[in-house]
Amino acid sequence: MVLIQQQRSWSTRLEGKKKRLAEVAHLVNGVTIPTEIIVDVLELLIKPGDRVVLEGNNQKQASFLSQALVKVDPERVHDLHMIMSSVSRPEHLDIFEEGIAKKIDLSFAGPQSLRIAQMIEDGRLVLGDLHTYVELYGRLFIDLIPNVALVAADKADRFGNLYTGPNTEETPTIVEAAAFRDGIVIAQVNEIVDELPRVDIPGSWVDFIVEADEPYELEPLFTRDPRHITDIQILQAMMCIRGIYEKHGVQSLNHGIGFNTAAIELLLPSYGEQLGLKGKICKNWVLNPHPTLIPAIETGWVESVHCFGGELGMEKYVQARRDIFFTGKDGSLRSNRTLAQLAGQYAVDLFIGSTLQMDAYGNSSTVTKGRVAGYGGAPNMGHDPGGRRHSTEAWYNMMTSQDELARGKKLVVQVAETFQDANTPVFVERLDAIDVKKQANLAVAPVMIYAEDVTHVVTEEGIAYLYKTDSPAERREMIASIAGVTPLGMENDVKRTKSLRERGLVAMPEDLNILRGEANRSLLAAKNIDELVQWSGGLYEPPSKFKSW
Amino acid sequence: MVLIQQQRSWSTRLEGKKKRLAEVAHLVNGVTIPTEIIVDVLELLIKPGDRVVLEGNNQKQASFLSQALVKVDPERVHDLHMIMSSVSRPEHLDIFEEGIAKKIDLSFAGPQSLRIAQMIEDGRLVLGDLHTYVELYGRLFIDLIPNVALVAADKADRFGNLYTGPNTEETPTIVEAAAFRDGIVIAQVNEIVDELPRVDIPGSWVDFIVEADEPYELEPLFTRDPRHITDIQILQAMMCIRGIYEKHGVQSLNHGIGFNTAAIELLLPSYGEQLGLKGKICKNWVLNPHPTLIPAIETGWVESVHCFGGELGMEKYVQARRDIFFTGKDGSLRSNRTLAQLAGQYAVDLFIGSTLQMDAYGNSSTVTKGRVAGYGGAPNMGHDPGGRRHSTEAWYNMMTSQDELARGKKLVVQVAETFQDANTPVFVERLDAIDVKKQANLAVAPVMIYAEDVTHVVTEEGIAYLYKTDSPAERREMIASIAGVTPLGMENDVKRTKSLRERGLVAMPEDLNILRGEANRSLLAAKNIDELVQWSGGLYEPPSKFKSW
Repeated sequence: MVLIQQQRSWSTRLEGKKKRLAEVAHLVNGVTIPTEIIVDVLELLIKPGDRVVLEGNNQKQASFLSQALVKVDPERVHDLHMIMSSVSRPEHLDIFEEGIAKKIDLSFAGPQSLRIAQMIEDGRLVLGDLHTYVELYGRLFIDLIPNVALVAADKADRFGNLYTGPNTEETPTIVEAAAFRDGIVIAQVNEIVDELPRVDIPGSWVDFIVEADEPYELEPLFTRDPRHITDIQILQAMMCIRGIYEKHGVQSLNHGIGFNTAAIELLLPSYGEQLGLKGKICKNWVLNPHPTLIPAIETGWVESVHCFGGELGMEKYVQARRDIFFTGKDGSLRSNRTLAQLAGQYAVDLFIGSTLQMDAYGNSSTVTKGRVAGYGGAPNMGHDPGGRRHSTEAWYNMMTSQDELARGKKLVVQVAETFQDANTPVFVERLDAIDVKKQANLAVAPVMIYAEDVTHVVTEEGIAYLYKTDSPAERREMIASIAGVTPLGMENDVKRTKSLRERGLVAMPEDLNILRGEANRSLLAAKNIDELVQWSGGLYEPPSKFKSW
Repeated sequence: MVLIQQQRSWSTRLEGKKKRLAEVAHLVNGVTIPTEIIVDVLELLIKPGDRVVLEGNNQKQASFLSQALVKVDPERVHDLHMIMSSVSRPEHLDIFEEGIAKKIDLSFAGPQSLRIAQMIEDGRLVLGDLHTYVELYGRLFIDLIPNVALVAADKADRFGNLYTGPNTEETPTIVEAAAFRDGIVIAQVNEIVDELPRVDIPGSWVDFIVEADEPYELEPLFTRDPRHITDIQILQAMMCIRGIYEKHGVQSLNHGIGFNTAAIELLLPSYGEQLGLKGKICKNWVLNPHPTLIPAIETGWVESVHCFGGELGMEKYVQARRDIFFTGKDGSLRSNRTLAQLAGQYAVDLFIGSTLQMDAYGNSSTVTKGRVAGYGGAPNMGHDPGGRRHSTEAWYNMMTSQDELARGKKLVVQVAETFQDANTPVFVERLDAIDVKKQANLAVAPVMIYAEDVTHVVTEEGIAYLYKTDSPAERREMIASIAGVTPLGMENDVKRTKSLRERGLVAMPEDLNILRGEANRSLLAAKNIDELVQWSGGLYEPPSKFKSW
């Protein structure tokens, strides 16, 4: 029953691309777009209704290209479907106000989360969906295949080969999705040079390069000044080290952004050393080059660090600590958001992050009323990967059943103080995310980490070992027992808490031999940015906003 | 408390690499290793105890390099820790017999699964662990960082740039882990040319190329001859199309290897067309270029296909159907196992695969007694990804709860006939995997797909909609009702099955308006390889072992 088919073209995408390229042929010099005519060229290369990936990374922003996109004529370029892992610059939303773009799929909208929520409500922007980073990347190869990719690199040569240097981040993944599907790839670069230090992306994947009028925007998103670490955060860090890292033998891990994890990093060379834990915990890391990790690296705690992206000011330090980081032949960092997220999902013992809101069963979210913040990488690394099959000490340690098919679990730790501020308890009966679902017209409530994935909750009161129970009622009691004077915390009484402690379901600092009075800033390996610079032997060069001298 | 540190070198990996490179400098021509001295060069570049990634891909094998490795002097090169996604060639295990290698971490050992099990038992090989592909790749950046990577490519230029063509598979990921950590990357190539059709891997990531004495081994692993598709498989395929794909609106999907999924592919242009489903289901695919997908492509069912690897004989067809596949500027396929697995995990509605053994609750495994087969990609794609946050029709359709935080689920379908052969029921009380755990000294039993992830089980008797219940007892009843005359199947009676059918927990063919008598080979869009060639207009060039003419 072989049927004779109608004649049809099987290369419409390629033909469409060729037509677009022909329209700009008289304007460009080979692969180079002259800086000053970028808007004209974009108006010819991008067509109404196109799916456009605009590189708004976690740190690196294709800022020259986004500023150009907002200037195109909406009569000529409109109804774009934008795909952006991070919505962080004003023009990322201005293109919707201007009528250039219509729909968006994204991962993270931290700085623009209020405005985006308002625009959805006003019908000025259609939200496709919220994603964790690698989920959005996956869709680039399935049902969100892009027509155009607008990305940023450090340098290009005249063949269009790209050097992304320490800030490779998601660029190769975005480029691959467009380049191998007859999409158009345009890379803004800080400079065009004769010879690249190394090639991060081959020129045969790139259609055009354009020298930007100024270097791409780069945010030092992962830098935390130790001056702002509080005694409570130090107490929580001590509990994490004793009651989780040591207890379960955590060797490989990811630390999220925040002062809580910065405190842990800065306690390893002091408190961790006193406990004799060096070489036993925290050896293999997946995280950006946090400046607060410098003392632990210098004292020999860290064997390896694989990075999602770079961190402003850490370039020389990374280069000089080549045994620890992934670097290219040129000596500078090679980051890769996709591979780091994959490793962070499947290959580490533990994910730890902070949360702003948690319900009584352990579901948590950083969205609060009126904000569509998105997720970033947390859902990917903060869940128990169902496809994992290898065992490590810490993973195996989470096994609580005697069943012949029982397996371990990834450690997913959520740290929170019981109150966000004097009047706002972290522990609530109902997450704000449920209202955001309605407001933003989402199919499901935007939960960051689901209760079923959380193994430990840490507050200033103690640790709840949630992995030890399957009972929702018992989970609630455990969380209540460390929820302080929040309404949830008031549900518990001393007697019940005592019983939970005796059964090992909850631990207070004294159960871990931690004296609350000892938890203070004198334990920090570095108390400010200047001391981090000293630890680095002057190699760390903090951005000026972090300098107090 | 900044401490003055002891002087230490932070570039021991780089220094070690430079030393090794110096030792072979007099033997090589720039980046080129002369073919005939590969064994001598390997003896100098690889040191005892090294972690070595040897590209044993699903299809593509670095066969020249593996044949060379088995010839090195075990006095000089020994105790290697091998990392291989697929153990498929005899010399992959010979290196352990010879004392060259000691430990192995792997994903799949299909063809060598009996021998590897015996070698573990005899203490001739230390098994690290079994992994799904991307899990193993993740560890390359965390705790299994390689010293040496031995890979295969189609062509190289004299700068070491690599063209992997249709068979890119896992090569870029392996190379990245070694290249950016001062490891040594050696690529065997079929030929060295002046100009590459395109660059898949930049030369600055590669240390050496070597022209192989013969082209790398390539297995047509995904080709299924429609001649061998049975009427029972056709019945099951009809049930899948009606009772799963149509019912839930499955638009994006992965098909595993096998005759069951080949039958579905070949029914789309016939049975699927009759049902009016074109354009409604099966639009975006992640799978290798299966020849059995040709009729569906030709009749306009398929919008896109992203591939893990290539398939022998499909090269010209893919090139001529550029609108459907991911191709490079040279027109040939660009596959990428890592990205396809990521997309297959996070971005598709459904995974469907076959199993050899399933317990009464839905846990399944393809391991049988005495075999350490590993997993391949099934655990990664055959689980509900806990990090997924976007919604699609099919995913949302799996939601059974009214809870405010309820979400959808990925569809994970397991297809099996009730008996493997006349005496071996597929449904068992206890998986053989539990004994393999002991035999191979594994921490946990090697389960391929866990019950909690399986949403549908399909046998020749009917479909069990497992996602509709959380009760283990009810799951057991549902599976029993479609388990035929296996011991498990005998537990159920007609009355109970009737009740399950009425409640929509189970569907028999007649519930789906499928007449068993209509399920026969006349429905197949192609009944043999020759008809597939005809459908392709002569573009598909089957390997000779599939030719009957």
